[in-house]
Amino acid sequence: MQILNGGLEQVPGYSFSAIECGIRKKDRLDFCAIVADTLCNAAGMFTTNKIFAAPVRLCRERVGSPVRAIIVNATNANACTGLEGYSDALNLTEAMAKALGAEKKSVLMASTGVIGHRLPVDKMLSAIPALARSLSHENGSLIPKAIMTTDTFPKSAAASFSTPLGEFKIAGTAKGSGMIAPNMATLLSFIITDCPVNKKSLDTIFKRCINNSFNSITIDGDMSTNDTALILSPASRLYIKKEDLADFEEALEYVLGELCRMLVMDAEGATKFVTVNVAGAKTDADARTAARAVAQSLLVKTAFFGKDPNWGRIACAAGYSGALVKEENLSIYIEDVALLQKGRPLEFDKKFMDSILSKREFSVFVDIGLGSSRAQFLTSDISYDYVKINAEYTT
Amino acid sequence: MQILNGGLEQVPGYSFSAIECGIRKKDRLDFCAIVADTLCNAAGMFTTNKIFAAPVRLCRERVGSPVRAIIVNATNANACTGLEGYSDALNLTEAMAKALGAEKKSVLMASTGVIGHRLPVDKMLSAIPALARSLSHENGSLIPKAIMTTDTFPKSAAASFSTPLGEFKIAGTAKGSGMIAPNMATLLSFIITDCPVNKKSLDTIFKRCINNSFNSITIDGDMSTNDTALILSPASRLYIKKEDLADFEEALEYVLGELCRMLVMDAEGATKFVTVNVAGAKTDADARTAARAVAQSLLVKTAFFGKDPNWGRIACAAGYSGALVKEENLSIYIEDVALLQKGRPLEFDKKFMDSILSKREFSVFVDIGLGSSRAQFLTSDISYDYVKINAEYTT
Repeated sequence: MQILNGGLEQVPGYSFSAIECGIRKKDRLDFCAIVADTLCNAAGMFTTNKIFAAPVRLCRERVGSPVRAIIVNATNANACTGLEGYSDALNLTEAMAKALGAEKKSVLMASTGVIGHRLPVDKMLSAIPALARSLSHENGSLIPKAIMTTDTFPKSAAASFSTPLGEFKIAGTAKGSGMIAPNMATLLSFIITDCPVNKKSLDTIFKRCINNSFNSITIDGDMSTNDTALILSPASRLYIKKEDLADFEEALEYVLGELCRMLVMDAEGATKFVTVNVAGAKTDADARTAARAVAQSLLVKTAFFGKDPNWGRIACAAGYSGALVKEENLSIYIEDVALLQKGRPLEFDKKFMDSILSKREFSVFVDIGLGSSRAQFLTSDISYDYVKINAEYTT
Repeated sequence: MQILNGGLEQVPGYSFSAIECGIRKKDRLDFCAIVADTLCNAAGMFTTNKIFAAPVRLCRERVGSPVRAIIVNATNANACTGLEGYSDALNLTEAMAKALGAEKKSVLMASTGVIGHRLPVDKMLSAIPALARSLSHENGSLIPKAIMTTDTFPKSAAASFSTPLGEFKIAGTAKGSGMIAPNMATLLSFIITDCPVNKKSLDTIFKRCINNSFNSITIDGDMSTNDTALILSPASRLYIKKEDLADFEEALEYVLGELCRMLVMDAEGATKFVTVNVAGAKTDADARTAARAVAQSLLVKTAFFGKDPNWGRIACAAGYSGALVKEENLSIYIEDVALLQKGRPLEFDKKFMDSILSKREFSVFVDIGLGSSRAQFLTSDISYDYVKINAEYTT
């Protein structure tokens, strides 16, 4: 696998467009399209929220069949908009399919933004010809910008990998920033590849990779109504072989991993990027449960913000997580400094610890000492700005 | 039932003392005792955290037998202190029992404060004679102050009630403020009554009342290592009759309810006190699950702080709670203003809504529309000050 600069525009066989449609705000890209030259296999992972947006319903219905395009709008989530909202999504995708000369149901849609408002459908329908007209390969770099809400920078990652069928490319983009929680981090993410992967393998591998990436980051524990991650891979008569799927998976993992890093780096108001590693859990589920609880604890996250080596809060979060934890087996480290070893608090060099906690990025290691299962979560701190951003983001 | 002013000092048959012991800070009450004139039946509810403090272990072991006294220290949690911490708690309670001429195991202990530090046992042991010497009925009013950590005001409630056995009194105190989450809100709470209730009824009623009070409030979703709620009632040859237990329960409910209100009112950095009512759930568990998710959502709580009628975040939290929720049945109100009715967003008077959200106290009503189960949670907003307090509370 080789890391590539840039993003979607690296992958042959796709074109892109992004326009200012004035959906809720002026002078910003808010409506965009990712279009494959040929029909693709698609796989999707969606919010598990019982209140889910109209475009999520539409994607769930269509992701099993071949897909040509994805249209995406920002600033309005088209959630809690009932049957009208669903019919808006139907009409918009249908219009896009028509503009592309594609199958009606081969267009997917994703939306992000405020909940409870109808999309300005007429305005968007009139914009669709322009969206179709301005498609180009180079426009790939516009997509990450067009899908942002409170993100402070666009997010892309790309890689290439070799198989006996040839060299392929894979790239992705994501938006996140608020409402990021495991089981889907709130985000939209779109991954494309020119590597032909059969539908069944695409489903399995995408699910596995999402669980180890987007479902292992947490910012505020809230799960959105719109979480959508989609991957497109060209439908083909000749798919890469089973034994070469590992190369594809490695590249996909890299792309998703990079997007995760960027999402957590760009968490609303975050000043810290913290990797929480848990080891020594009795089961894999325990490892994940404990890692999530530590990564999600508001008290742990405010301690990170305050540069406070408050391992007691970490122990406490592991203790209430539901995972099997015993005080006398528990060890806690920040970077490689042991703070608690098998239940015994240790003296540590406060100055050195302060220098670690003053860094933008550091890691926490929790050794449960009861088994051999491991898990990793990425998290951020919770700062004044997190509160500010979320108190001021109006309905 | 009659509401009484004041707190613990209202209840005959108990004496109290509180001293400045310099456990971690100077010039503050940090060590106190609640002593019954005679042996009492006790009931206790404790943290479900797998990492629990030494005094929690001690209380769990002793709460089944008759109890004479409870000693409490603030500023140091005696948690993550291993066998030494447990032996410290043993020694301190034993010294107190000796000073009172009571049974060794009839003294309970509770601690609150930072995790991972040994108590200054020698200092505390030397202070115990003074603690025993200064016991008086009037000192009851000192206890709420002596148990505070980041609380900004002491919390007490008292009531009286009549039964055929005579008039009785009940009073309680609590400390909370940070780390407040359901399944036990992090707190210490001590309830005393002169009403003789048999051990079995005391256990049952106390558990039920705690579930409807301390386990139904949430501030930050973190559950502490030290949560302890204890009730004492005189052991007697003559207990109030089964048919009169409802009077006792009503008074206990009132006292716990008042303490809950005060805890949420005093939530770290809180500017809002919000009652979350859920109705129309299919099951009681669903009602509680949905109410807790809404009350605990960081995005909902920052919206409260920002006076933002962001019902979308409320719908979103109900949706991811795990409770059965259907968009087309869901209605959401703030006070009596409908924002969403059976899945349809409604127009509302923004000025009037702003006047509601500007108040210190308001309520949110979520009607799931799928059944008849109800639940209530009390919650606060999350403000800049919450972050400040928790970023600066050092290990």
